[in-house]
Amino acid sequence: MIRRALIVSLALAGCAPVHARQAPASLPPALPAADLPPLFAAEVEDARSFVDAMMERGVVVPVPRDPGGGYTHEQHKRNYKAIYLGGQLYRVTGQQAYADYVRDLLLAYAELYPTLGDHPARANQNPGRLFWQVLNDAVWLVHSVQGYGDIRDTLSEADRQLIDDQVFRRAAQFLSVDSQATFDRIHNHATWAAAGVGMTGYLLGDDDLVERALMGSDKSGTTGFLRQTELLFSPDGYYTEGPYYQRYALMPFMVFADVIAKHDPDRHIFQWRDGILLKALQTTIQLTYDGYFFPFNDALRDKSLNTDELYHGVAIAYAETEDSGLLDIARSQGRTILTDDGLKLARDLAAGKARPFPFRSLLLSDGPEGDQGAVAILRHGEGDGHMALVAKNTSQGMGHGHFDKLSWQLYDNGHEIVRDYGAARFLNIVAKEGGRYLPENESWAKQTIAHNALVINGESHFGGDQKLADLHAPQQLYYDAGADLQISTATIDSAYPEHGVTMTRSLALLDVAGLDAPVVIDLLNASGNGSLTYDLPLHYTGQIMETGFPVSRNLAERPVLGEANGYQHIWVDGTATPTADNAFMTWILGGRFYTYRFVPQDSLSVILGESGANDPHFNLRREPMIIQRKSGGTAASFVSVLESHGLYDGAAEETVGSRSQIASLRHETRDGYDFVIVETTSGTRTALALSYDRDPTKTHNAKIDGTDVRWTGFAARIALDGEND
Amino acid sequence: MIRRALIVSLALAGCAPVHARQAPASLPPALPAADLPPLFAAEVEDARSFVDAMMERGVVVPVPRDPGGGYTHEQHKRNYKAIYLGGQLYRVTGQQAYADYVRDLLLAYAELYPTLGDHPARANQNPGRLFWQVLNDAVWLVHSVQGYGDIRDTLSEADRQLIDDQVFRRAAQFLSVDSQATFDRIHNHATWAAAGVGMTGYLLGDDDLVERALMGSDKSGTTGFLRQTELLFSPDGYYTEGPYYQRYALMPFMVFADVIAKHDPDRHIFQWRDGILLKALQTTIQLTYDGYFFPFNDALRDKSLNTDELYHGVAIAYAETEDSGLLDIARSQGRTILTDDGLKLARDLAAGKARPFPFRSLLLSDGPEGDQGAVAILRHGEGDGHMALVAKNTSQGMGHGHFDKLSWQLYDNGHEIVRDYGAARFLNIVAKEGGRYLPENESWAKQTIAHNALVINGESHFGGDQKLADLHAPQQLYYDAGADLQISTATIDSAYPEHGVTMTRSLALLDVAGLDAPVVIDLLNASGNGSLTYDLPLHYTGQIMETGFPVSRNLAERPVLGEANGYQHIWVDGTATPTADNAFMTWILGGRFYTYRFVPQDSLSVILGESGANDPHFNLRREPMIIQRKSGGTAASFVSVLESHGLYDGAAEETVGSRSQIASLRHETRDGYDFVIVETTSGTRTALALSYDRDPTKTHNAKIDGTDVRWTGFAARIALDGEND
Repeated sequence: MIRRALIVSLALAGCAPVHARQAPASLPPALPAADLPPLFAAEVEDARSFVDAMMERGVVVPVPRDPGGGYTHEQHKRNYKAIYLGGQLYRVTGQQAYADYVRDLLLAYAELYPTLGDHPARANQNPGRLFWQVLNDAVWLVHSVQGYGDIRDTLSEADRQLIDDQVFRRAAQFLSVDSQATFDRIHNHATWAAAGVGMTGYLLGDDDLVERALMGSDKSGTTGFLRQTELLFSPDGYYTEGPYYQRYALMPFMVFADVIAKHDPDRHIFQWRDGILLKALQTTIQLTYDGYFFPFNDALRDKSLNTDELYHGVAIAYAETEDSGLLDIARSQGRTILTDDGLKLARDLAAGKARPFPFRSLLLSDGPEGDQGAVAILRHGEGDGHMALVAKNTSQGMGHGHFDKLSWQLYDNGHEIVRDYGAARFLNIVAKEGGRYLPENESWAKQTIAHNALVINGESHFGGDQKLADLHAPQQLYYDAGADLQISTATIDSAYPEHGVTMTRSLALLDVAGLDAPVVIDLLNASGNGSLTYDLPLHYTGQIMETGFPVSRNLAERPVLGEANGYQHIWVDGTATPTADNAFMTWILGGRFYTYRFVPQDSLSVILGESGANDPHFNLRREPMIIQRKSGGTAASFVSVLESHGLYDGAAEETVGSRSQIASLRHETRDGYDFVIVETTSGTRTALALSYDRDPTKTHNAKIDGTDVRWTGFAARIALDGEND
Repeated sequence: MIRRALIVSLALAGCAPVHARQAPASLPPALPAADLPPLFAAEVEDARSFVDAMMERGVVVPVPRDPGGGYTHEQHKRNYKAIYLGGQLYRVTGQQAYADYVRDLLLAYAELYPTLGDHPARANQNPGRLFWQVLNDAVWLVHSVQGYGDIRDTLSEADRQLIDDQVFRRAAQFLSVDSQATFDRIHNHATWAAAGVGMTGYLLGDDDLVERALMGSDKSGTTGFLRQTELLFSPDGYYTEGPYYQRYALMPFMVFADVIAKHDPDRHIFQWRDGILLKALQTTIQLTYDGYFFPFNDALRDKSLNTDELYHGVAIAYAETEDSGLLDIARSQGRTILTDDGLKLARDLAAGKARPFPFRSLLLSDGPEGDQGAVAILRHGEGDGHMALVAKNTSQGMGHGHFDKLSWQLYDNGHEIVRDYGAARFLNIVAKEGGRYLPENESWAKQTIAHNALVINGESHFGGDQKLADLHAPQQLYYDAGADLQISTATIDSAYPEHGVTMTRSLALLDVAGLDAPVVIDLLNASGNGSLTYDLPLHYTGQIMETGFPVSRNLAERPVLGEANGYQHIWVDGTATPTADNAFMTWILGGRFYTYRFVPQDSLSVILGESGANDPHFNLRREPMIIQRKSGGTAASFVSVLESHGLYDGAAEETVGSRSQIASLRHETRDGYDFVIVETTSGTRTALALSYDRDPTKTHNAKIDGTDVRWTGFAARIALDGEND
């Protein structure tokens, strides 16, 4: 079945490399190695090592047979990488052998491609030719056309014609015509196809291909690349599926835009829609902590900025903007790409032009018009150990979205303190269902109880129905990132249509007089029809140091919490009924202590649990949680504070501040206002006041603890004992 | 009760600093800051920051009142640190203020000391004066006498006399006469006392004190410092309590020896007993992986070479030996001490003289005569990610020892793959029983089932009786660290006197043809009287990828494994009855896969479990284990292989070799020989042959798989299909 070691060795008179007609090339045909900046030189060596090994194995272009992960699948992936890097190596080194190898590979494809129909392992409605899915064929084309562009002018007329017609025109035809349904979607898969087809059009001088890529197959502009940039990103450059897929989606956008900019500068593609593509690149980077993407929705938690998509994105954006913060990212990546953009970046990095990337607090709207909710990021401090709160008030984000409206995460001291589980999946690990999403992704990772989100009556948001969820998004009511108060407030009234539940959540970083770090304030009000059960989980990381409340423990037998909607995966370690003076719990993580304290509203109980029950194949991680449960009533108010304190240094045998410095937490409501009052052990009181009034100029008055207080706007921090205590 | 801010401000005519009579000082009285090498300069700054802050607070010498962790306890600790560093700062900087502050502190002590009796918070038979335990008083003296030595010659005759007599002579008298019982023990506490007394003797020119310190209070040499060096370390420099306490014990030995060497060079203290103290320092460092001490016995797992004791030990040993590997350790520590030894080390480090510390395979005998068992360390590769197997065949190690005869650990790829739990303790964390050893240290951490050690009939070794355990040690039968086979074999027949059990275990790193890393072979033979139940746990770290065997899972309710001896702390996730073709399990940790495979001997079942049951205060970590259980029979043979394979790179979305490359594992016995035969998926067979014959020249013959094989000595690797497959 497999044609192994098909070595095509056409004699070719040595053509001196000349630049392609349309390709503006700032790389000279061969750069002296000594002139290469270190980052770029290292890439050359990496690429050499890969391509040289491929060349040793010869030209191997097998007839397609296997699905993802199988031999022919992996070999065609290796081949496009070799074509892509081989072309670049030829441009950088001028060594003819690289051009010859790319040519020989493509001649083998020219022989194979015309023989292909639908892939024999087709898995869905969108089969590819070389691969089981059309998406992979598009990725193949995006890479291969770049490598081809680097060597095309070295070819004999006959070879060039053969490869143009039998490989690239056919591939473009397949993607844009035969696979028109995919091509004309407003979807990331269509972006890959448009990029491949459009880049082929530019290389072959085929305006029809270019036009179809940019404006859709009917050239009306209702689909195609330009429309995709309008509909797939919010005005703030947020991609609706979330950071993990944003990273992936960005690649064809940036690579194709780079080609458009170079061939068609009058289009001003990087200024298009208020610079949406460059904004999206910046936003992608902002959606990280210590280099790792916020793992909400279906995300692999070990995905970081150190990924091929971002090496491309950073180099292309840097070449366009010369933003010195991007050099900082490139430095931490330690990688770049073998293009003129990568060379420019590497040179400027070597010249010391990098400046720290400005990670900051920001609000990222979701939806093409920016009105489908938002992600609010609140950061305090700088560098690896800074504190970052992420409020996830986005829309569902399609099939990879989780049912986690108004959920949140907290990072501190280099760790994820309040966790998002991410996806239940072990990528590419054969023993774990071939590396696909696991059943527990549906039964646990997507369910509301698996998130730091409010659950009503043990049911997930929208009843776990994605189609319903796609129709509704939270509303971001307020966002502000001031010096001593950063806050995000959002609301949604559609997550439980059956129960008519409205929930409104404010998450804040509040400076408290006398504490060395801001505390997190979490205020969640919910109301609905009839008597409801309200569960608010907190998925934390760390080992419990103490619970203020006595816990009724399941010491020698652990039951599970429920039957469905994720509850079947929770072991119950114990339950408790906290009172106002003992409603707190302290854990330790990474040498820092965290105390979670909450107001024991009426009918409140607490469940201490751990994920991992009903997990026959050990697919779940076992992670702790605490659930505040209010049983009964048409309304609930969850008021919590999370305090980061102290230090444990095992090496120095030093422990300080292992106990909470907060003496009490109170919640008061008056005239529609909410007040959360934090009193420290030294007796100073700091309040968060919420008017919920979006008029920033309106003044509000109230009495707290007998004192008249006054503030303007939606929310305010009030130091009840002055600032100097 | 507390005398706060007792500021003693005696006027002192400015004495130019002169060297103490006996103290050979290579540090000039004041070094220009610019001449200081970076490491030393940084220490000066650290010390300044501490001492300057102390000086701002004034002289605070409270009447002793509190136990460990309390205010007066911590203040007297701060004071000795200030005396110690203050003296050194004076020598380094020549700034009189430091000498004055040390003098003022000591004058305050001269006022306080004569008023003291037993500490009011005395906790045991050995009360201190300044502290609740005499040990702390000794530590106070060791530090203070050094700081005093640095400034003594600057004092007026009157002050000097006052401090000599009222502080140091009294403290030495207290430790060596009033506390004679402690002083004359062969125990680390006595080493601290001897060091304090002896260093005081040298400083004051009091030969009687020196003699008592070196030879014991009766000066016979049956106790005292020299005898301690003979009895507390094995000939290989191993300290019987284990690495965690070895680190602590080393400090007074090295510091006092340094003083002896400088004042009494003819004693050749560093050559004493074949250089035992320098050997002990080297051994301490060898007992680490990636800088962290092997955590067996009562150890805190976060203890690393970055600890005060080792800053001293490394500087002193370097000054003595100029061993460039120690500079490498100092570089990774990033710390040193403010003495002439520290200066020399810092200068040589700055001069680029460091060479990688030679971590290597080695056998460390235990016991004063080296016949109380051993620790065998087998290392493969170099650097942070190297593989290291630790076979713990030591004696009990007194009160901090665990009941874990013939246990082991494995490190690989920067992680502890096969774990030792260490101690159940959260040092200095008030909420965790004041930071003391927790009840679970006895009920779990010390028990045999909590280790990778064989349990008979659910009982711990020696019935968990330390006094009995102290009487018996394993015998190290064999150790060899060859290129393609490293192996340790040990035996013990005294751990279960009631059942007459003998157990013999071989742990090896075996090169297997076709695999890229050696595999661990674990062969444990046990026999006893009557029908016994044999449990062999493996405490691993990671998430299960697959089990070859079907597991009967406790999915919605987890029972505990037993009632006592640690079994009450184990949740049972499931049980299984593996067969020869499916007796393996694979997990992932740190991007690497590990497959544990074993021979399913008769009546073998398997238990998958997790620690954490019956843990009312969340004191235990929750960690997985697999237990091989053989029920019934007078003998058992556990034959297992642990294979490190493949790579998972989430960032690059790359997974290779996620499945075991071993096709089968067999165990054969013939004529008293043991053979373990590993066959890879590519069909090559590699055998470990054991004759158990300690004659290295004797030749052995046998037939394996029909082939005649031949080897000499105790153990051998045999490539059954040649080396080139």
